[in-house]
Amino acid sequence: MRFERIKTPGLAHLSYFLCSEKEAIIVDPRRDIDVYIELAHEQGVEIKYVLETHRQEDFVLGSKVLQEKTGAKIIGGRHNLFSHCDIQLEDGEYFKADEFTFLSLSTPGHTPESHCYGLYLKNQDTCWGIFTGDTLFIGETGRTDLPDINKTGENAKILYQSVNNKILGLGDQALIFPAHGSGSVCGGAIADHDQSTLGYERSSNPVFLESETEFVKRKINERIPRPPYFDLMEKMNLDGGWRMEQDLAHIKALSPEEFKTRSKDSIVIDTRSPESFASGHIEGSYNIWLDGLAVFGGWVCKRDTPVYLVNERNEDVNQALLMLSRLGVGRIKGFLAEGINKWRNQGHALQSSGVLTAQELHSNPAHFDVFDVREVTEYEQGHIQNAKHCYVGHLVHYLKSHKPSSKPIATICSVGHRGGMAASIFLRLGYKNVYNVLGGMKSWEALGYQTMEGTKKEKQGPPKKSIDNAAQWGSTH
Amino acid sequence: MRFERIKTPGLAHLSYFLCSEKEAIIVDPRRDIDVYIELAHEQGVEIKYVLETHRQEDFVLGSKVLQEKTGAKIIGGRHNLFSHCDIQLEDGEYFKADEFTFLSLSTPGHTPESHCYGLYLKNQDTCWGIFTGDTLFIGETGRTDLPDINKTGENAKILYQSVNNKILGLGDQALIFPAHGSGSVCGGAIADHDQSTLGYERSSNPVFLESETEFVKRKINERIPRPPYFDLMEKMNLDGGWRMEQDLAHIKALSPEEFKTRSKDSIVIDTRSPESFASGHIEGSYNIWLDGLAVFGGWVCKRDTPVYLVNERNEDVNQALLMLSRLGVGRIKGFLAEGINKWRNQGHALQSSGVLTAQELHSNPAHFDVFDVREVTEYEQGHIQNAKHCYVGHLVHYLKSHKPSSKPIATICSVGHRGGMAASIFLRLGYKNVYNVLGGMKSWEALGYQTMEGTKKEKQGPPKKSIDNAAQWGSTH
Amino acid sequence: MRFERIKTPGLAHLSYFLCSEKEAIIVDPRRDIDVYIELAHEQGVEIKYVLETHRQEDFVLGSKVLQEKTGAKIIGGRHNLFSHCDIQLEDGEYFKADEFTFLSLSTPGHTPESHCYGLYLKNQDTCWGIFTGDTLFIGETGRTDLPDINKTGENAKILYQSVNNKILGLGDQALIFPAHGSGSVCGGAIADHDQSTLGYERSSNPVFLESETEFVKRKINERIPRPPYFDLMEKMNLDGGWRMEQDLAHIKALSPEEFKTRSKDSIVIDTRSPESFASGHIEGSYNIWLDGLAVFGGWVCKRDTPVYLVNERNEDVNQALLMLSRLGVGRIKGFLAEGINKWRNQGHALQSSGVLTAQELHSNPAHFDVFDVREVTEYEQGHIQNAKHCYVGHLVHYLKSHKPSSKPIATICSVGHRGGMAASIFLRLGYKNVYNVLGGMKSWEALGYQTMEGTKKEKQGPPKKSIDNAAQWGSTH
Amino acid sequence: MRFERIKTPGLAHLSYFLCSEKEAIIVDPRRDIDVYIELAHEQGVEIKYVLETHRQEDFVLGSKVLQEKTGAKIIGGRHNLFSHCDIQLEDGEYFKADEFTFLSLSTPGHTPESHCYGLYLKNQDTCWGIFTGDTLFIGETGRTDLPDINKTGENAKILYQSVNNKILGLGDQALIFPAHGSGSVCGGAIADHDQSTLGYERSSNPVFLESETEFVKRKINERIPRPPYFDLMEKMNLDGGWRMEQDLAHIKALSPEEFKTRSKDSIVIDTRSPESFASGHIEGSYNIWLDGLAVFGGWVCKRDTPVYLVNERNEDVNQALLMLSRLGVGRIKGFLAEGINKWRNQGHALQSSGVLTAQELHSNPAHFDVFDVREVTEYEQGHIQNAKHCYVGHLVHYLKSHKPSSKPIATICSVGHRGGMAASIFLRLGYKNVYNVLGGMKSWEALGYQTMEGTKKEKQGPPKKSIDNAAQWGSTH
Repeated sequence: MRFERIKTPGLAHLSYFLCSEKEAIIVDPRRDIDVYIELAHEQGVEIKYVLETHRQEDFVLGSKVLQEKTGAKIIGGRHNLFSHCDIQLEDGEYFKADEFTFLSLSTPGHTPESHCYGLYLKNQDTCWGIFTGDTLFIGETGRTDLPDINKTGENAKILYQSVNNKILGLGDQALIFPAHGSGSVCGGAIADHDQSTLGYERSSNPVFLESETEFVKRKINERIPRPPYFDLMEKMNLDGGWRMEQDLAHIKALSPEEFKTRSKDSIVIDTRSPESFASGHIEGSYNIWLDGLAVFGGWVCKRDTPVYLVNERNEDVNQALLMLSRLGVGRIKGFLAEGINKWRNQGHALQSSGVLTAQELHSNPAHFDVFDVREVTEYEQGHIQNAKHCYVGHLVHYLKSHKPSSKPIATICSVGHRGGMAASIFLRLGYKNVYNVLGGMKSWEALGYQTMEGTKKEKQGPPKKSIDNAAQWGSTH
Repeated sequence: MRFERIKTPGLAHLSYFLCSEKEAIIVDPRRDIDVYIELAHEQGVEIKYVLETHRQEDFVLGSKVLQEKTGAKIIGGRHNLFSHCDIQLEDGEYFKADEFTFLSLSTPGHTPESHCYGLYLKNQDTCWGIFTGDTLFIGETGRTDLPDINKTGENAKILYQSVNNKILGLGDQALIFPAHGSGSVCGGAIADHDQSTLGYERSSNPVFLESETEFVKRKINERIPRPPYFDLMEKMNLDGGWRMEQDLAHIKALSPEEFKTRSKDSIVIDTRSPESFASGHIEGSYNIWLDGLAVFGGWVCKRDTPVYLVNERNEDVNQALLMLSRLGVGRIKGFLAEGINKWRNQGHALQSSGVLTAQELHSNPAHFDVFDVREVTEYEQGHIQNAKHCYVGHLVHYLKSHKPSSKPIATICSVGHRGGMAASIFLRLGYKNVYNVLGGMKSWEALGYQTMEGTKKEKQGPPKKSIDNAAQWGSTH
Repeated sequence: MRFERIKTPGLAHLSYFLCSEKEAIIVDPRRDIDVYIELAHEQGVEIKYVLETHRQEDFVLGSKVLQEKTGAKIIGGRHNLFSHCDIQLEDGEYFKADEFTFLSLSTPGHTPESHCYGLYLKNQDTCWGIFTGDTLFIGETGRTDLPDINKTGENAKILYQSVNNKILGLGDQALIFPAHGSGSVCGGAIADHDQSTLGYERSSNPVFLESETEFVKRKINERIPRPPYFDLMEKMNLDGGWRMEQDLAHIKALSPEEFKTRSKDSIVIDTRSPESFASGHIEGSYNIWLDGLAVFGGWVCKRDTPVYLVNERNEDVNQALLMLSRLGVGRIKGFLAEGINKWRNQGHALQSSGVLTAQELHSNPAHFDVFDVREVTEYEQGHIQNAKHCYVGHLVHYLKSHKPSSKPIATICSVGHRGGMAASIFLRLGYKNVYNVLGGMKSWEALGYQTMEGTKKEKQGPPKKSIDNAAQWGSTH
Repeated sequence: MRFERIKTPGLAHLSYFLCSEKEAIIVDPRRDIDVYIELAHEQGVEIKYVLETHRQEDFVLGSKVLQEKTGAKIIGGRHNLFSHCDIQLEDGEYFKADEFTFLSLSTPGHTPESHCYGLYLKNQDTCWGIFTGDTLFIGETGRTDLPDINKTGENAKILYQSVNNKILGLGDQALIFPAHGSGSVCGGAIADHDQSTLGYERSSNPVFLESETEFVKRKINERIPRPPYFDLMEKMNLDGGWRMEQDLAHIKALSPEEFKTRSKDSIVIDTRSPESFASGHIEGSYNIWLDGLAVFGGWVCKRDTPVYLVNERNEDVNQALLMLSRLGVGRIKGFLAEGINKWRNQGHALQSSGVLTAQELHSNPAHFDVFDVREVTEYEQGHIQNAKHCYVGHLVHYLKSHKPSSKPIATICSVGHRGGMAASIFLRLGYKNVYNVLGGMKSWEALGYQTMEGTKKEKQGPPKKSIDNAAQWGSTH
């Protein structure tokens, strides 16, 4: 038996490779499947099954391509969203795969089809571990607003029961294997240790410590943004995902002149750090740090949006391609060879923007129109007095109806990444005197400066459907 | 928080890297410490503590060298075998290291000083995991014969109580982090899944399923060989181990002529597979497969024994060096450049030996004097009728007083590795017509041939002290 | 400027990556183009041109796929075999690509369209280097029998003039960049140093030291085998090659049972060393060592032949796939998981064959029917008295009309690889008592045993078209 | 035969690995010798000889440590600076090492002991290649001012004769293998192609195109700075260099608090890009970009200077350690864990400085006191009107006697690296309003702005001995 957890950086997605001497099972694979193939070859086993816990919303599944190339069968629960599966297991059904036995558990709440799988080794009666998908995370549970924002509470109730009535029965000893883990881009309150057990969760995860009413109330209050690409993902995953469509050979290294010409009417994304971006960037470019592409790429690109990249290093194009491909968005056409240095050295125009330290902002707060672009719950837990709030993803829409004052604009988030993205959005819209507070609220608080708590009254963002929230998204930046 | 398990191949040794945002703790480090340093640098933390669970017998510890180079403090229990430690924790004492709290537990049995550490995260009251050293493995417990072969049962009783009275109290939810895991060279009945919890062990590990009496009886019956280098290791680890003494630059690639001249009065180890060895090898060489060096290197080398290697590939010398260095034995002087091919191509003499398939042996068993060189318990669980038994490590001593018949000799183990080593020992002693049964008992049994069970009466091996047994040793080959 | 030579192991093929600050040019690319794409991205340049020296016969070109994916233009000479090229250069024409200038030289002889390119840097008038394709190697020239075996001499004359009249004029200082280099599998008399200059060749390469008559005579006498897949390759390369058709995910790791069932009527290739093969293999399998697949795979597989592999290690399947794909032959369906060990351990039948040392053969030569399977020129330079000759690639055809005697068969080549392949061919044909002489003639000669020189009279091999010869093929094994 | 060129990044140093079937020879090895050991092991050969071309001034040699660990013999010429060599070859002597023959040539000029080695393969009479040390580079020659600045012309004459009378005689066909190649940090006019021949040099290298008088004049005019650590290096290399003294385990990852405390009275080097440095850095730190450490580390550190690093990424500490160790300067005590981000996030003070684009500077040049910190020859080839000149390495000394005006200071170099270092030096000295012109003169010229040529009159820098110049130093930044 070999068991491996495969982390997908940026997405903080976890998939699993499990094999006996004969066959391998992959749980919730991502679209770029090489890692699974290599493990299977290394172990000398056939990939026989792909287990899906639910129709993922935040990345393109690799079930389909694994099925096509290796002949593996896709397994899901008994629900019409699993109708692309070769095998649909009933709730409570046992499924045997060589030396492993899986107990199929229907655990709706996060989504209606959400499914967990208890794993039993050889002839043991005690459950060894549980693939919990987005139902139960370490220290957290999946969001419940996705199917219908108006039924967030209702679904929270369903999830509460799934977790407490179905999963909990597998015993304190059972290991927890969720579909998302903690990570720098991973949000909510998912814990930063990546191993846990049902028993440990029982004593530390709110879903087990709160009453149903408390839990439902908390979930209703989560209000995590719902990225616009979730719809695309749900469509792509309805059949088990999609194979990769673009490879590195399609992406051109472009000289500054060519870059300028070709990117004219396309989206330019600058993946460098906010500091580098501020000290000089191409006018009209978005600033989304490299790891952040795995989430925020989906806020600015649609499926076939042509994208041109400005990277720190030429090699970063590889990672950028993976990040966007996993989301199924953007078609990278080229990158600026040698990055901004060559551009500058050839005398092409650069725009620069401002940065502020927390100290500088604190010394004269009234001088700035401060925009806090974190998620609403982060804002409510403590923000700078008079800071306006608008989540970075909703900024374009928000500014259509809310004009900033004539003061210099200061964007702030937790440490500076989302602030940088927000600054780039202001600049694209033609605002001047835009400053990103490097270090963000983390630095502000470390310096002991005053913050305000409290509910945010103001309405904001795009209409109903998309003000909504999204569970495992980059909320900590 | 970051938590990593570092596996040492061959030894099936597990050490652990645990860090908060500020500092790292290493548990039971090996001697070649680069992996810990790299992790610490990558995370940007200082290695502050080294935790020892006991004075390891099967590899040289890296505590000392970590202390010297990084200033880390060594932590152990309150026992005089831990007197080299900077900090000695009382039984039941809590020790705080940044966000982690360790509960120190004296758990004698495997050795008198054996110690476990419960780990609590942040402000949690529930134990997250336990570093169990060689006290509790997944599916197994440490051997109890090491301190005194005559007190195996007495120590088993002590271990039984340590596990049941001390460890069990930490709760079903606690993760288990032992110092050895399953692996191809790892012996006994350690399970082949490498994650477990106290609760899962409670329902599957014999120590929790047996009565004290049954447990003690089983431990007495384990009779795992005690490799001769255990004494050296215990001495080296008394002060927390030793730094590396040899590096690759010291090892010469030798032409066949030079190899012949220089290796004349030294030990030659041929690390190729038994098949390759059989089809042509240098007279007088030992055959110990590459991974097997991590264990059996210690049966043929003392601390400073000069060693010359015949490898499959030139690059294998790197791994061979690590394997022997971790045991603290052997000083590799050179290796045969381009291996046996060059030797043969230059017309140097080769000795070849025989191989048998299980079918061939079965077709005429009486033709051979069969030596089963597995451990005694393996032998007792099923062997070929009339096969003699002597553990491969004891063969030289055994043959001093037991002459084989004049028939061709057939060596057999589980799959062929130890059989190959045994064949090479016979050949070194001047026996001709030596055959290694490739596929071993595994193949014999797969073919449905008859085996005999039963106690072995015959006395064997070197005197008392070293007939003894050793828990986590390559018993499955 | 960056200039890299990319070696393809096994094929001993050399392709070149050349770039200025803006654009890259690839010379004679192979089909798996990742290496070129990565270099281009790393340097931040666009691949603008692909240069072809001729329609390669021994591997599938990557021109086409580079054109498709990157938009690069393919450049060749003015000959109808270059009619797929975007740009066809006249003989003597200069072509400018950013800071590089190429002098196009029509240099027929190896093939009618063969073309060389002199390279001039920046504004220099002196030639820096020459891409010589298969016209001029280091220490050797390309074979001249390919277009028409009956015009070998005529073509040799043409090549002699191309080299002496066209290439030589570029000056002693010019670096030589041929399409094939020396390597363990690379044949003929290509030198083992991989850098040279026109001046150094002028003083050491036979083409410059011999008179035209001597040269023609030598070329007529080369008689290198012509592998059957050359025809396929010529067809595939007529349009600039082909993209990769198979990836690792298509290849299944098979258990012994599955392997047995599925490979029943297909070709099984055992890529292990001859020793390992001899000590136990699956009946009916070919023995072609891993690196040898790059050449000999093409002797046993046609384009879509289903292939099943027995490897030393599971991971070897990667290399095997590349080796065969580069030749455009074979469709690997699966490999035996855990190799022959698992097969044996499960009690499946194994066939073993014999090995001999040179000493053993020498001690009783008359006991064996010796088959020397090297190329005819190797044979003529020195062979064992009474050894029969048949090139390994022609063995099947040869044995149709030449029955061996009833003696045990001994196969011999230079060191043992081709001998192993030959032994496997005998075994497939049902012969018993087949022995491969490990160490081959190299060992025989090192021991000072007698050899015979002289012309070989005997006719052999398949009819006309394919007795022919092939230059850069694994003739030293 | 295998021949490999080993590049040392940053230093643009080239060493060579050459081996026959039996033995390897290393030419001009660097101090960290793993790369040579690995190549030798891979090839299965013994390192038998180390060839030195001269007592290198710009890095610590690895001859000594190779000798100690492998028993290799060190070879040099007949000169007392080679008296540590095991073998001292006469001028014109042939030395045979297995299949290679070396022709020893005394070629003074760069230094009095400078030596070249012609290499002949097997039985060839024609020279294949020449190890030219710092005597002949591709497109350039070694500087001639090092032994005595007042004898630069005299030594240039000697070098001219060495090259024209000794080396040229080896023939146009001979390959050139110098000790330094082109690279981003590599200076002078060394060409950017890394292969060449004597014949190609004869038609393109000034030493062969100029008369002796012209050559001498040009060399006198080179005026490359002489870094202060050259003296240390010459001392360390007098005995063939020194082994590595520091390893990664000695370097601590430090939290902001610890960093602040420990680095108090030591040197802090910030290895990030000039942009990042400008946008926020620790007061008093030097800004030396990572690759630049290989040269400029030696301008700010002495042999045992304690150094604390601020890096872009934690892992950069590895490269920084190698860079400084190869120079033999600095003892890295620690690095700032998680870099400046963590520092900022914890609210520690940051200093920021200004950056300018060429356009901004051009729009108001009189507003700034412009310091051009390139080498004097770069300055003379074209600088901004009224820009003052002082080489970055001499800035501290220069400012003791030359006070800047009260205007804001603008530092400018070729693209911005040395300008960043200069800005950090101004800041350390307490100047405010310091701006680094990103893109430097390269950008200025690309925009078509006016430059001034002409001799620089003004005296500058430290006294005689060290105003001097140094050949292969980072002059292009």
